[in-house]
Amino acid sequence: MQIADRMEKITPFYVMELLRRAKQLEAEGRDIIHMEIGEPDFATPAAITKAGLDYIKAGHVKYTPAAGLPELRQKIADFYWQRYQVTVPMERIFITPGASGAFLLALGVSLNAGDEVLLADPCYPCNQNFIHLFDGKVKHIPVYADTAYQLSSSLLQQHWHTQTQATLVASPSNPTGTIIQADELEKMIQFVTQKQGVFLSDEIYHGLVYESGVASALEFSDEVFVINSFSKYFGMTGWRAGWLVVPEAYTEAVEKLAQNIFISTSSHSQYAALAAFEVETLDELEQRRQDFSQKRDFLYQSLLDLGFKIPVKPAGAFYIYADCRAFTDNSWLFAEQLLEVEGLAVTPGKDFGRNKSEQYLRFSYTGSMQNIQRAMQRLERFITT
Amino acid sequence: MQIADRMEKITPFYVMELLRRAKQLEAEGRDIIHMEIGEPDFATPAAITKAGLDYIKAGHVKYTPAAGLPELRQKIADFYWQRYQVTVPMERIFITPGASGAFLLALGVSLNAGDEVLLADPCYPCNQNFIHLFDGKVKHIPVYADTAYQLSSSLLQQHWHTQTQATLVASPSNPTGTIIQADELEKMIQFVTQKQGVFLSDEIYHGLVYESGVASALEFSDEVFVINSFSKYFGMTGWRAGWLVVPEAYTEAVEKLAQNIFISTSSHSQYAALAAFEVETLDELEQRRQDFSQKRDFLYQSLLDLGFKIPVKPAGAFYIYADCRAFTDNSWLFAEQLLEVEGLAVTPGKDFGRNKSEQYLRFSYTGSMQNIQRAMQRLERFITT
Repeated sequence: MQIADRMEKITPFYVMELLRRAKQLEAEGRDIIHMEIGEPDFATPAAITKAGLDYIKAGHVKYTPAAGLPELRQKIADFYWQRYQVTVPMERIFITPGASGAFLLALGVSLNAGDEVLLADPCYPCNQNFIHLFDGKVKHIPVYADTAYQLSSSLLQQHWHTQTQATLVASPSNPTGTIIQADELEKMIQFVTQKQGVFLSDEIYHGLVYESGVASALEFSDEVFVINSFSKYFGMTGWRAGWLVVPEAYTEAVEKLAQNIFISTSSHSQYAALAAFEVETLDELEQRRQDFSQKRDFLYQSLLDLGFKIPVKPAGAFYIYADCRAFTDNSWLFAEQLLEVEGLAVTPGKDFGRNKSEQYLRFSYTGSMQNIQRAMQRLERFITT
Repeated sequence: MQIADRMEKITPFYVMELLRRAKQLEAEGRDIIHMEIGEPDFATPAAITKAGLDYIKAGHVKYTPAAGLPELRQKIADFYWQRYQVTVPMERIFITPGASGAFLLALGVSLNAGDEVLLADPCYPCNQNFIHLFDGKVKHIPVYADTAYQLSSSLLQQHWHTQTQATLVASPSNPTGTIIQADELEKMIQFVTQKQGVFLSDEIYHGLVYESGVASALEFSDEVFVINSFSKYFGMTGWRAGWLVVPEAYTEAVEKLAQNIFISTSSHSQYAALAAFEVETLDELEQRRQDFSQKRDFLYQSLLDLGFKIPVKPAGAFYIYADCRAFTDNSWLFAEQLLEVEGLAVTPGKDFGRNKSEQYLRFSYTGSMQNIQRAMQRLERFITT
């Protein structure tokens, strides 16, 4: 029996190997500190949990419309107005099973087999794998400190050619935590629009920014796809709910595809998410944001003090992508040994591309400050012995 | 901006138009009886709901492994032994966001663009649309009463050619409710195996059979894909949880794809589903099955009495696909008028294919017996006036 060709191009999460080993060590009684995982430590905010429980208790967990609960779509529309002062009609907003579902819809309706999509290297591996899923071609553009490890309008100009159909950016980025400045984002969108290409903006770490705000692609155009999620900022990872904003011309196609490939997003997760925009919840999330900010500052300074290089201070998400050349030219091996010797799990650069990825490690600061402090002690001991 | 070519082939649920009109009429105060919907009327069984609530109350709704909770995979493996006396190692079982997610994985790992898949006409429209999603080719094979509106080994033999890569069967079928007999299913699997093709078996209505049992493809081979769901038999539609059983050679590819396109299935839904196989739950589901059986018998006899033709008595699911030629040669128009005049919503055959579909209507018996009785009174009035 045939395995589809695309599966050769779709990469696994290499870090899963380390995670398996970490769990094995834990089962043997070792104390492991996890800095490899992209999942906030905190519980789902109380109001969201309560809304989910109340809905389930009412007894009828039924399908919702394929596009999502109208009241949730409207709340997201309102949120765009409150947070970004942009008007997004709810008809352009689709509720999806996590950002994963949003990527499926966005690329499913816009990408033909063979179309090329421009992506930054490093980037989050799933994003490119969605392109492979639809037999698209990924063109990796190596990015460096000069563009804050992001694509830029001049990079797009340089690499866009006749086969190019789309570009996908993520701001804040996983793994680098860096953002695209508003004026640059606007220029990029203008360029892609002029090329009649598809601009996809992964905004799943919006809300988790620590220096200043971060611009949404929707501030500059209605003709963009925006992927967002309740997982990260709203603390709803396991609930699997996200959303997709689409250009008006795509709403019919997206609705049709959602009907067919999801039926609908988990109803209890959607009802729970209705409480995500309550003042009480947003206050709690602001507290958490400040907490993340402190952890970032601590981790950033600690890594620098230990001799790691971080040319661009990450402005958001909960990752630091640190250059570890001072200690190794094989970050995979380094991560393996760090886990074995010190019980500290981090993600090797290999998971995020091929642009000198063997010189990088990603540290997540999703755990407690105490654990991050302990982790830095272990890391120091590891590199000094 | 480009809309992907596949979107021209992917059909919407035409019945949604009728559903919108039905809701409009309801908003105007009309009493509408819904026989167009494929969702059981009853609440999720109490033990399942309680398990979901307990998990959420514990406070940490986090990602699960991409393949699903190991304990849930094991319970499904146990269930295959209890119900079908087949051994399916849990490593071959993947938890998915509904059967929808199972189709995504199964076709994503096995189908290349341009590959042809043999499907019965009529069939459930989503099934063919998943094939279009991956730019596969659907070859519709008209099926009739002589094969209980199912594909057969001789039909497969007749239509399989060099471009054919797979076939997808559904037993019980939506819309016809008919099943494939065990010996025929075995022959079909043998034929496809011999062709080194992919055999996909949609078993989401298993458990809901009223004459005798229904065979699982897993009884005859380990080299098949089986799609199943907690939605229908287990009454968990809105929870969005299903599963996929894959041949051993595909486990690595499927795990990789699941990591990338789902991250994981809703955690609360998975924890809730752990209670699906408890004796208490299964007893409740058996009660419901008997209840469905009575509704089927009543609806079947009523439609025959009114002059509809149902050449093969449906053995499962909760649908009757009735030939309405005695009253109309345009079942779409008939359904529209039935809704307007009598407030009875049913699904026109158009949603299920092009094989004389204008001569068919699908009636769901997911509502209460009282409503089904009232519906039959309305239908009688409609066709006699």
